[in-house]
Amino acid sequence: MALELYWGSGSPYAWRVQLALEYKGLAYESHLLQFSKQEHKSPEMLAMNPRGRVPVLKDGDYVVFESLACLLYLDRKFPERPLFGATPEEAGTIMRVICEYQAYAEPSLTEVVRAVFFENLAERMEAVSKAMQVLVSEARTIDDRLGDCDWLVGERPSAADLVIFPGIQLLLRALDKRDAVDLRPRFLPLETNFPAIGRWIDRIEALPGFERTYPPHWREGAPRG
Amino acid sequence: MALELYWGSGSPYAWRVQLALEYKGLAYESHLLQFSKQEHKSPEMLAMNPRGRVPVLKDGDYVVFESLACLLYLDRKFPERPLFGATPEEAGTIMRVICEYQAYAEPSLTEVVRAVFFENLAERMEAVSKAMQVLVSEARTIDDRLGDCDWLVGERPSAADLVIFPGIQLLLRALDKRDAVDLRPRFLPLETNFPAIGRWIDRIEALPGFERTYPPHWREGAPRG
Repeated sequence: MALELYWGSGSPYAWRVQLALEYKGLAYESHLLQFSKQEHKSPEMLAMNPRGRVPVLKDGDYVVFESLACLLYLDRKFPERPLFGATPEEAGTIMRVICEYQAYAEPSLTEVVRAVFFENLAERMEAVSKAMQVLVSEARTIDDRLGDCDWLVGERPSAADLVIFPGIQLLLRALDKRDAVDLRPRFLPLETNFPAIGRWIDRIEALPGFERTYPPHWREGAPRG
Repeated sequence: MALELYWGSGSPYAWRVQLALEYKGLAYESHLLQFSKQEHKSPEMLAMNPRGRVPVLKDGDYVVFESLACLLYLDRKFPERPLFGATPEEAGTIMRVICEYQAYAEPSLTEVVRAVFFENLAERMEAVSKAMQVLVSEARTIDDRLGDCDWLVGERPSAADLVIFPGIQLLLRALDKRDAVDLRPRFLPLETNFPAIGRWIDRIEALPGFERTYPPHWREGAPRG
């Protein structure tokens, strides 16, 4: 029975799992759901994930959701090209970097992205500016990490890279919006402020299969909204 | 070289790792830090975790922090009595339950606990009441899960139980405070509203070594504050 992935274009959470499937070279059936048609809330989807969120990964009769859980499942089921390290020490550090990102960077990233794409940015500017300060500081930590090595932990791509990359891409897309011009200083251009992150993005984009994971609606020219 | 755990009394994050060490029957050197003396921000601690948070786990020269990362490290290094399941399917579901707790319950739990212990609860009552509604709904989901089984995932305790238990204990302690009386309906008494959670708490408290993990300052009578 083939692996099946239910995802939506531009979801950073789903993107992580697509990257993992491609990195491991696994065949899978791809189900692209249209958020605009609420396809992620269909009875069929809610039967698999009552929270109506993507990604949802199906492997025969087994269903798992929440991106980090999908990554751990894939890694345990298909251990080749490990996502959670080759040693206990690598596993611990990979999860540590993921947890730090989720605890200290992601809430601010979500705040900025939501304000830019879905809210009145001008009205939210004070909170969003503070969130950008946090993100500059967290990006500095990540850039320092990447100064000495090609990947966030160890000598190969890991779950840490696949978890953090889509979030950074989403942030860059938000900052690219015309309204977000005041948020860019100290973050953009990336090559100047965070050169190691810039080179790391190039490395991830050069991974085999990367093109298949790129959000289709992002290809359609200028950012939305 | 012995395992060493740096922790603080009442930190639900540190408690997870204590429970894991005891569950696996591992010997460890226990370093109880006094938050009131800012011992978690000492130069020695900041050298291990620049964020100055607990738990910090040290194993010889290797240092890891962030509770989930500590659990994964311990599980990879000492696979007996697995915390992340015996099969890929169990691993995925354990991580899924953890991620759901972190994404959908923990922010509300933190909001309630912070308001009760550290803020003017009366002023925060509107937000805190909403947070309690979320927690009632999430606790219902957990109670349903536990209706059919002794543990959250599979037939043995797992990282899911060890991650969620300390949070629920902290919430119960907050609700026990005199000021929090208006927050209790629909949640307390636990035995009536969430009987399966009540029995699950008894089961965790009966695990070998549990007593050694109980926050020392919680023994000193009535809740603080």
